[in-house]
Amino acid sequence: MQIAIVLYPGFTALDFIGPYEVLRWLPDAEVRFVWHEPGPVVADSGVLVIGATHSFDETPGPDIVLVPGGFTTMEHARDERVLDWLRRTHQSTTWTSSVCSGSVLLAAAGLLDGKRATSHWAAVQSLRAFGVTPVGDERIVRSDERIVTCAGVSAGIDLGLWLAGEIGGEAKARAIQLSMEYDPQPPFDSGHMSKASTATKAAATALMARELASPPALKATVGLLWDHAIRRARSRK
Amino acid sequence: MQIAIVLYPGFTALDFIGPYEVLRWLPDAEVRFVWHEPGPVVADSGVLVIGATHSFDETPGPDIVLVPGGFTTMEHARDERVLDWLRRTHQSTTWTSSVCSGSVLLAAAGLLDGKRATSHWAAVQSLRAFGVTPVGDERIVRSDERIVTCAGVSAGIDLGLWLAGEIGGEAKARAIQLSMEYDPQPPFDSGHMSKASTATKAAATALMARELASPPALKATVGLLWDHAIRRARSRK
Repeated sequence: MQIAIVLYPGFTALDFIGPYEVLRWLPDAEVRFVWHEPGPVVADSGVLVIGATHSFDETPGPDIVLVPGGFTTMEHARDERVLDWLRRTHQSTTWTSSVCSGSVLLAAAGLLDGKRATSHWAAVQSLRAFGVTPVGDERIVRSDERIVTCAGVSAGIDLGLWLAGEIGGEAKARAIQLSMEYDPQPPFDSGHMSKASTATKAAATALMARELASPPALKATVGLLWDHAIRRARSRK
Repeated sequence: MQIAIVLYPGFTALDFIGPYEVLRWLPDAEVRFVWHEPGPVVADSGVLVIGATHSFDETPGPDIVLVPGGFTTMEHARDERVLDWLRRTHQSTTWTSSVCSGSVLLAAAGLLDGKRATSHWAAVQSLRAFGVTPVGDERIVRSDERIVTCAGVSAGIDLGLWLAGEIGGEAKARAIQLSMEYDPQPPFDSGHMSKASTATKAAATALMARELASPPALKATVGLLWDHAIRRARSRK
């Protein structure tokens, strides 16, 4: 079972390290990290470097595709080679999945047209521009028979276990959960917009705005939304 | 504030990607991944490659040290250069911390002598051989004023948030928790030995035994325990 994790520059590492740490224990799991070319890829933090092990061309038929989020998702959502690969591989995947703002890539590829999906709370409303129904209050959203999306960053662990249950059965998923001692005990309870105080929401937004409101990020977002709006306008009958 | 994450061959990635994803948002955080030499380091899975950004020699005085776990911990716990670096840096750290079997490295360096500490459930009892009191039922164990250890793999996220609260204050920690949407909803409840069924415990043990009972891992474990027992015998008055 080949599991292809898309590793783009500017990724958020926990988005895919969570599900990687789960899915790699499934029987016959062959995990690969894919990008245009194999080689080092730098995270959103600028200090973490992870290796892409295979190119898209070398990975024409993965069983599972997982797309993580990051502050550069909007930029890569205009990369037609990435979108084409997602469309082509999705034709034969068992599961096509996303964590965090990775769902924007699936949406830009047209895989979520008319469907429900989730994303990081800071990105979920942008799904609407792609004709996707944004869901902000479910941690894992099964968009259709073979597509599943989840909330931001840490939600990838829950998604990984959910997928492990679907693929390998509940007994296997439970064994993996114990092996990674996933018995979460957050010292605070501010992990969702519905639970956080106004002050926490403001502070988290300010924290992320440093990245999301950077000139390149804003330019990519505006460009992506314009592209998509114009494509829709041109295709109107 | 310099945060040094020890990146040894055979690491378990989620152990440190969890706290990295938290701590990097603290004001003035400078995260580095340290090993004997900068360069690519391969995870326990064999398919994930992460870059060490700095050598130990280049990192003489970090504010925070974090040691992750992995199936090769016992092997590296006999590497005197690693142990010396841990002892030297600990003299001036604000926090010296471990996730999972990383506490075996702290114990082998003598930093946990006579103290309480935790580890992954598969490794926690081995702490006893180093004169450490193993704690199996607390997710985060503060061993002394400046040392904190936590349970296996995913516990690193909880540790990261706890440290963020200590270092940056609760308001900052809560904002980081929301930014990473850490509102865990595991689809199963088998993440701790006290919660898992006998069948799950057996399956998880079998899963990990593939790695822990490999000839090199067994050799390293036996060697480490012999080293330590003989050192203790020789030092008896």
